[in-house]
Amino acid sequence: MTDDAASADRRVRTSFAKQGLMRTLGARLAKVTPGQVEIVLVPNPEVSQQHGFVHAGAVSAIADSAAGYAALSMMPVDRGVLTTEFKINLLAPATGERIIARGKVVKAGRTLTLAQAEVFSENEGKERLIALLTATLMAIEGRDGIAD
Amino acid sequence: MTDDAASADRRVRTSFAKQGLMRTLGARLAKVTPGQVEIVLVPNPEVSQQHGFVHAGAVSAIADSAAGYAALSMMPVDRGVLTTEFKINLLAPATGERIIARGKVVKAGRTLTLAQAEVFSENEGKERLIALLTATLMAIEGRDGIAD
Amino acid sequence: MTDDAASADRRVRTSFAKQGLMRTLGARLAKVTPGQVEIVLVPNPEVSQQHGFVHAGAVSAIADSAAGYAALSMMPVDRGVLTTEFKINLLAPATGERIIARGKVVKAGRTLTLAQAEVFSENEGKERLIALLTATLMAIEGRDGIAD
Amino acid sequence: MTDDAASADRRVRTSFAKQGLMRTLGARLAKVTPGQVEIVLVPNPEVSQQHGFVHAGAVSAIADSAAGYAALSMMPVDRGVLTTEFKINLLAPATGERIIARGKVVKAGRTLTLAQAEVFSENEGKERLIALLTATLMAIEGRDGIAD
Repeated sequence: MTDDAASADRRVRTSFAKQGLMRTLGARLAKVTPGQVEIVLVPNPEVSQQHGFVHAGAVSAIADSAAGYAALSMMPVDRGVLTTEFKINLLAPATGERIIARGKVVKAGRTLTLAQAEVFSENEGKERLIALLTATLMAIEGRDGIAD
Repeated sequence: MTDDAASADRRVRTSFAKQGLMRTLGARLAKVTPGQVEIVLVPNPEVSQQHGFVHAGAVSAIADSAAGYAALSMMPVDRGVLTTEFKINLLAPATGERIIARGKVVKAGRTLTLAQAEVFSENEGKERLIALLTATLMAIEGRDGIAD
Repeated sequence: MTDDAASADRRVRTSFAKQGLMRTLGARLAKVTPGQVEIVLVPNPEVSQQHGFVHAGAVSAIADSAAGYAALSMMPVDRGVLTTEFKINLLAPATGERIIARGKVVKAGRTLTLAQAEVFSENEGKERLIALLTATLMAIEGRDGIAD
Repeated sequence: MTDDAASADRRVRTSFAKQGLMRTLGARLAKVTPGQVEIVLVPNPEVSQQHGFVHAGAVSAIADSAAGYAALSMMPVDRGVLTTEFKINLLAPATGERIIARGKVVKAGRTLTLAQAEVFSENEGKERLIALLTATLMAIEGRDGIAD
């Protein structure tokens, strides 16, 4: 791991550990490289909607975090990020052994960064695309105590 | 309460009670009328992001459920709904005493229904708009065991 | 008309006249009040898609302009706006005697403004909602020659 | 060119020629392969917004057509498509020698197809990503005279 990669990894892991929602959902930070982040959620009744699938809100939560952390991993150290908007297309019910959200930066800008997350359902070693999220993140510089 | 209102209320409450995620988040179904649904969430560390605000994923989850149940409340009884996509604009950090998501149907169609949810932060009796969600719901008729 | 209304009207009309695309589409600025703007397009073969309906791109163009000008009408005079993203739901084919896009500001912020536009199809004096657009506009202050 | 490719090419070209808006904008169908379509627009005052950039509505129009035709190129011959919603992020002003929209299918479904279009600005042989569109297309089977 290069210094940059190690530093991005540490930065994202420290911040992720502060996200109470990720712990509550049972989501796990699987991989971090600069510009790319993977979050994994194991389906269970505590994150379900009424038909037993993983709730769109839980899918969105890990996809938003994956996209947001991909953006954060490329930010100067004195800047945090806030999601200003996202759009998610839900392509198939979220079921299976694991739900995997992979976030990546599409374009990093001074004020706004565009990131995407693909969400896969994994079953018997095979992955299937179940959702696609596109998010705009705003860089926040030392405002209102907002950092990583 | 009219028969229609009572029936919509019962239908939505029964389904909401099956959403494990709503229970896990501590979200509560506050009001149901045909075409309109209100869900309330009290901010707490279990639904937070890294700065202590309510996570965009939790805001999205209650907004999506509010919009989806607004749609369900107007569906014929043999049909359920699934969210196929939503877009959310996050206008201000989700903080305060209560987060209130109010869903309503914009246009009900045979296959697709468009619904919106406004999300407010309530503090000392005053409400402030913090998010706006627009969702497309697909009507599902007795497919794959999907009902209310 | 108050001074504010007259000034917003003049400002938006002057800018609208510079939008070559609006002229090319045959779109007309119908009403301007601070925070609200109406643009009208008469369906014709020059703005059609393959089935003869008005093309989603033309519907989006007038809806985006209506939302953007609603935002501009509330900006301090030294600031312009640029659309950073929008989402449009197309609810019914765009046909009829007139297509009317009504933009309004949902929340005006220092950097970002959220606006919406409802698009109606008018026929024999009756209006029908055919599209809903939500747009984020960014305030631009004297940058790169961008003004109204 | 395989039979499938030739047939997709012919089908898309025939339909594109019926889109009055594309002709009005001066947009040109550059490439068609099954699941991928490229449309090119040369910036000019007739498609501009008030600062002289290509209007977001014109960018959206070619991106929506590129995404929609990517979807159509993979549809059974008795089915057409209609855009039900799209979201576009505008990353940089649309200027340059050519604006190129490249649409591709993300996931083709029985009722709904998800497609994306990346839009590039080309200058002195170099491309720069200026917009990203995500669209949902609905398959239409012999309804209301809607075909290709």
